[in-house]
Amino acid sequence: MNVIDVNASVSYPVVVGGCLLKDTGEYIRRFVPAAVKAAVITDDTVDGLYGDTVRESVRRAGLDVCTFVLPHGEASKNGENYLRILSFLAAEHITRSDAIAALGGGVAGDIAGFAAATYLRGIGIVQIPTTLLAQVDSSVGGKTAIDLPEGKNLAGAFYQPALVLCDTGTLDTLPEEVFIDGCAEAIKYGILGDEKLFEHLKEKGPGFDREYVISRCIESKRDLVMQDEFDRGRRRLLNLGHTTAHAAEKLSDYSLSHGRAVAMGIASVARAAAADGTCSADCAARIVDALRRFGLPDRFGYPFGDMYRVMLCDKKIRGNVISLVVPEEIGRCVIRKCTLEEMKSFFSPAFR
Amino acid sequence: MNVIDVNASVSYPVVVGGCLLKDTGEYIRRFVPAAVKAAVITDDTVDGLYGDTVRESVRRAGLDVCTFVLPHGEASKNGENYLRILSFLAAEHITRSDAIAALGGGVAGDIAGFAAATYLRGIGIVQIPTTLLAQVDSSVGGKTAIDLPEGKNLAGAFYQPALVLCDTGTLDTLPEEVFIDGCAEAIKYGILGDEKLFEHLKEKGPGFDREYVISRCIESKRDLVMQDEFDRGRRRLLNLGHTTAHAAEKLSDYSLSHGRAVAMGIASVARAAAADGTCSADCAARIVDALRRFGLPDRFGYPFGDMYRVMLCDKKIRGNVISLVVPEEIGRCVIRKCTLEEMKSFFSPAFR
Repeated sequence: MNVIDVNASVSYPVVVGGCLLKDTGEYIRRFVPAAVKAAVITDDTVDGLYGDTVRESVRRAGLDVCTFVLPHGEASKNGENYLRILSFLAAEHITRSDAIAALGGGVAGDIAGFAAATYLRGIGIVQIPTTLLAQVDSSVGGKTAIDLPEGKNLAGAFYQPALVLCDTGTLDTLPEEVFIDGCAEAIKYGILGDEKLFEHLKEKGPGFDREYVISRCIESKRDLVMQDEFDRGRRRLLNLGHTTAHAAEKLSDYSLSHGRAVAMGIASVARAAAADGTCSADCAARIVDALRRFGLPDRFGYPFGDMYRVMLCDKKIRGNVISLVVPEEIGRCVIRKCTLEEMKSFFSPAFR
Repeated sequence: MNVIDVNASVSYPVVVGGCLLKDTGEYIRRFVPAAVKAAVITDDTVDGLYGDTVRESVRRAGLDVCTFVLPHGEASKNGENYLRILSFLAAEHITRSDAIAALGGGVAGDIAGFAAATYLRGIGIVQIPTTLLAQVDSSVGGKTAIDLPEGKNLAGAFYQPALVLCDTGTLDTLPEEVFIDGCAEAIKYGILGDEKLFEHLKEKGPGFDREYVISRCIESKRDLVMQDEFDRGRRRLLNLGHTTAHAAEKLSDYSLSHGRAVAMGIASVARAAAADGTCSADCAARIVDALRRFGLPDRFGYPFGDMYRVMLCDKKIRGNVISLVVPEEIGRCVIRKCTLEEMKSFFSPAFR
């Protein structure tokens, strides 16, 4: 078991290890000490797998428990379900000192996090991510969100949890394609700042040491979040591969998974960086090899013209300028501000 | 014109004076400098009175403008309208650097404030309160909210505006009963910490000096908010008269206005404080006289038993304990923690 302390505007620990779910109740008592009741927010798949374990643990710790179950899938992360969760919390008489437990992947974590941030103007939340993607990325850092009909993650709040519990055992029940999806983000953390992590992943492939990899990813993210909680500077490094990835996800009408889109995005920015001399050809090749080791794709199926048109709507564009994250070598990336025209020339070679 | 600087987690000025609306555009340019577009959120009554003035000013300052109009009244402050506003902002391509202008009373200010707090995880908002209640109280301090079917203000965020513009001229178009409603909160600020303000209000009645009174109320609130932005300590003084007021509003199914309920609440807590010796009988009498000077009511129309049953559901109760705000003299109040039984004995004499 490994404990990583995050010191953002609020301090909290991220616990990484096996068999943590059965101690959920004790953890809630310790980190939301005034709680007398916990509201579990989860999806139907995860509820069937782990709901009882969590509820029994909460009851054993002497707390009341209630559960709100979302249909699984990204479509649930909408405004209507957000309002339903708020009404559920009010109807269950959840008070300011009680706790929410978000049990599931990024969808449960994001929507429950936003509900916790805003119900009674903020109550304590324990994040219990059960997918690799959520464990290495979305459960830490305090970004919460819902989707609007107009686009993904368009409303939300910065709101830090009271505790994050990453039970590596929950990864055993993940469908392989969902597991592999999370691996793309883990590789991203290696490229951003940790060559040793990168080499471990490249060598071991999907059989990597879970506690080590998840802990290192969280530590990297923690370091960036602590430097820049509100995403105005260095935290933007986390967007490595994401500008093109978001465009491809949108073009596919979100049938392309986030992890696979990120893998393609990382490979294209590496190729583009090698073409303009920011990194070596060898560096780009190692990045592509690592992705392939996991069976992740490294080429977009869309012509660059189509991608570019969608990229013009990126919410990170300010005026005519966008920030791109570009690798210099494995373990070092830079944020490069460029005009939309410069972005076009930069990426074009990667699509040949 | 008077400018009051608020230094909370974010610093911003509150401008109090006549004829400010026509300069809205210039103010937005100055305090949300990167904005290229402003979204005005208002209600149908206020839009008819002041919408054009504000929009023309914004356009004159070189910004694009769009408007979302709510039906007037508290019923509009709901989750569905909140989601509609978010979708409107997205459809209008409002970006992180653009601005929202909340034009109206507490309803427009609260729901637009919550939308600003959460759209793209937070964009700049200029509060332009047009009722006395909103000018002296709700537009300053950063509390934003929506109502749920289960109760008022059950979801929201602490989110400070970029600027507050209190145009005292807008009070000329307020229906008298709405104007008088705001006077109850102004009297509250006098009792809390400003005997001179209290005496001015008691002497002048509804013809008081608006710029002086509004400025002093805002300064008092500013001082409390700066000491306790997140409402864990001294900010709770602002609840003077509110515990019983909220119960009466609920019992009346919200047909009783907030200001009148607060007037009755202040009078009862003053009588109760005089009965148990916390303040003098003369102090309580002066408080009741001041309220009567404005034609505000000073007795609840409900038996205490009914009130008490509703008070048991107050969201500020923790365990068996509630904090009451009690006057010691005009200009000095204390927060007293008491059990629910003690609260019952404290208030009983005031209902005889």
